[in-house]
Amino acid sequence: MNFTSIINKKKNKINLTSKEITWLVESFLNGQIKDYQMSSFLMAVWFNGMNDEELAVFTENLINSGITYDLDGVEGPFADKHSTGGVGDKTSLIFAPLVAHFGVKVSKLSGRGLGQTGGTIDKLESCKGWTGEIEEQRFKEILNTVGMSIMSQSKNVVPADKKLYALRDVTGTVDSVPLIASSIMSKKLIIPAQSIILDVKVGSGAFMKDLQSAEVLANTMISIGKSHNRNVSVMLTNMDRPLGRAIGNAIEVKEAWETLHGKGPDDLNELCVTAAAITLVNTKKFSSLDEAKQKVYEVLKSGEAAHFLKDFVEAQSGDFSLIENYSKNFLTLHKIEVVAKKEGYVSFKSAEGLGYLSMKLGAGRERAEDTIDFSAGIYLNKTNGDFVKKDEVVMTLFTNISNNDEFLNEANDQIVISDKKDDTPVILKLILNSN
Amino acid sequence: MNFTSIINKKKNKINLTSKEITWLVESFLNGQIKDYQMSSFLMAVWFNGMNDEELAVFTENLINSGITYDLDGVEGPFADKHSTGGVGDKTSLIFAPLVAHFGVKVSKLSGRGLGQTGGTIDKLESCKGWTGEIEEQRFKEILNTVGMSIMSQSKNVVPADKKLYALRDVTGTVDSVPLIASSIMSKKLIIPAQSIILDVKVGSGAFMKDLQSAEVLANTMISIGKSHNRNVSVMLTNMDRPLGRAIGNAIEVKEAWETLHGKGPDDLNELCVTAAAITLVNTKKFSSLDEAKQKVYEVLKSGEAAHFLKDFVEAQSGDFSLIENYSKNFLTLHKIEVVAKKEGYVSFKSAEGLGYLSMKLGAGRERAEDTIDFSAGIYLNKTNGDFVKKDEVVMTLFTNISNNDEFLNEANDQIVISDKKDDTPVILKLILNSN
Repeated sequence: MNFTSIINKKKNKINLTSKEITWLVESFLNGQIKDYQMSSFLMAVWFNGMNDEELAVFTENLINSGITYDLDGVEGPFADKHSTGGVGDKTSLIFAPLVAHFGVKVSKLSGRGLGQTGGTIDKLESCKGWTGEIEEQRFKEILNTVGMSIMSQSKNVVPADKKLYALRDVTGTVDSVPLIASSIMSKKLIIPAQSIILDVKVGSGAFMKDLQSAEVLANTMISIGKSHNRNVSVMLTNMDRPLGRAIGNAIEVKEAWETLHGKGPDDLNELCVTAAAITLVNTKKFSSLDEAKQKVYEVLKSGEAAHFLKDFVEAQSGDFSLIENYSKNFLTLHKIEVVAKKEGYVSFKSAEGLGYLSMKLGAGRERAEDTIDFSAGIYLNKTNGDFVKKDEVVMTLFTNISNNDEFLNEANDQIVISDKKDDTPVILKLILNSN
Repeated sequence: MNFTSIINKKKNKINLTSKEITWLVESFLNGQIKDYQMSSFLMAVWFNGMNDEELAVFTENLINSGITYDLDGVEGPFADKHSTGGVGDKTSLIFAPLVAHFGVKVSKLSGRGLGQTGGTIDKLESCKGWTGEIEEQRFKEILNTVGMSIMSQSKNVVPADKKLYALRDVTGTVDSVPLIASSIMSKKLIIPAQSIILDVKVGSGAFMKDLQSAEVLANTMISIGKSHNRNVSVMLTNMDRPLGRAIGNAIEVKEAWETLHGKGPDDLNELCVTAAAITLVNTKKFSSLDEAKQKVYEVLKSGEAAHFLKDFVEAQSGDFSLIENYSKNFLTLHKIEVVAKKEGYVSFKSAEGLGYLSMKLGAGRERAEDTIDFSAGIYLNKTNGDFVKKDEVVMTLFTNISNNDEFLNEANDQIVISDKKDDTPVILKLILNSN
């Protein structure tokens, strides 16, 4: 087997065999195929794609490159959830308690944030002592006792994907549907959760710029899921706006906690209830999505599921009382209120822009080695579609960094006030698995 | 300027600016752009090509990466000739004397052979003492006194192309028309010859498998030539057959010498006369191609131009008497006559196959460091279209390697005898520059 014959097949749209794909991934990982060869293959894939069979084998090989988890000794069903990366996206912290309440265990790996996107692990670490660095055995115990657990992705999760992604990042091959789909799915499939709900962000700041290409990605991931006997459903959601009103770390955990008590913002309620309801249908807890949504919404409003978040945080050594007494524990040196310069309906230039602003306030990382200020972040007193009067507060910035003028300018730059109400829904489309 | 924006433009068929192309080539050469980045760019070019403007600038940058020659102090016009690599191709040794006879100076860089293809420098070195390693000043003197000179390509000729080609070779991006065209033309354009005739081989063993793709390559090279004010014409020629009857080194120089005395095989006569005639029209020595061909043919038949070959070899320190007394000087241990197994019309499985056989006999190199046996080679007693009787000699193999049975088998394997005469012409199509 040799690289040139494989690349020539891919260039000329001839399907690769399973053996060829396996050899390709293994040889890349062991260094026999060089970076400069793999990058030309990746570019050929950018142009000619991969069919379902190729992708199934390719993803299988990514999975086999590293550690996988079993859930032996824990009674299912198991569910997982993934977002392609949103600003203010604390959905997992609400989704997991909601489905756990109905007896579906949430077994999840999460990562840290970089750039404009926050990471679930970072957010949870604002509960001092909380750790995602737990052994597989402890993960299973918590699933058995609490019903949900979130583990940190080890640095070595799916090493073949890690190596491929680093190369794609510098060779213009990130924006390829089969490569995005296999990268995301390989990291989901190392844990045997039978139901997976994916939140694919659509918009100018996301990988997928429009609904059509997002649908292609969604269907590709559903196909990969099918080939691995997983039930994958996709929500295509609006990335032109942040999710909820809180952007940061502790402030997002607080918003999740409030939402679990029925006091959440509409867009976040809608997204979390829908994700949970789809999962409960996929795991046969309900037969109709409408019925599932209604029941989940009742649970959300009643606050019955909230304790799962607290129990899980405590089971992983976190001090949840910090969140319960938020105002005492997460004070910042600066609290900057950004007011409206005229009256009208509020929207934001981009969710991405707010994500970067939050990062600069201290809530995120510019480089992987940066540390995070858990108390920093943004609260949107007004959000998409809200009406604001002149001089009313649109958002509040919390930071320990003294750079108020610049922060204020950047915040003002993100605020759009117009005569027309932005009424784009948060969920643009659902692609439900037909299994 | 950054690589990702350039690759994204090329991926999405947006034309690159001159600045971007210049930056790309310079940054690759100085190591700022890595191999793994350039290979993904090359693959994007494989898919989306380059337009005429992009190619002109790209080629210009290749040229500027290394040494270029002027011909100051020598009176023109100047002509050059290039072949994409044929078996038995000694055209340059006949073409150059023919055009020199009419006062057009042939200033040429040549390379060595590898694999099935022989190199002009190797062939000439069978005249003991001959060297292509001459200084630019001496090159000009020989052009002035003899009218033709052939210099060895320095190892560092067009370094950006050299580095690119090494990468293309291992990343599946060799077979790209703009990359082939710019690579060939960059090496032609470093010498300011105003007329360039290109012999593009077409057939199963060549880069260009069919006439249509060869025409695309031809027109691309003509376009690059135009953008550099050169008059480029192209002959598309049949690569399914070797050229002439001799394949090797000294044996090819001998055939060239005989051809220059009017005793050459028809296909070689036709190719050399046509190439010379086109060049003489392009350099305004004749106004009509038919007239030029007729005059060149007369010169060929008369033997008047032959002395240019001898004079040039001697000017570059070669002993031409070795060729004049060929049978004394190039004896081999083995002389293997391969006879016909039945009667019929002769053709060969592939020119490439005969090239590899000649290499194995000692006449070529498998690896760049191998040495050459100048006396080894093949003489085709019968060639394409000739009728042969059973047991008549089809070809004679000359070698100093004792491996007669294997050589005989391989030779027999190449011979095709059928009822039908192969009458494919050697020249498939001419694409003349309209300047």
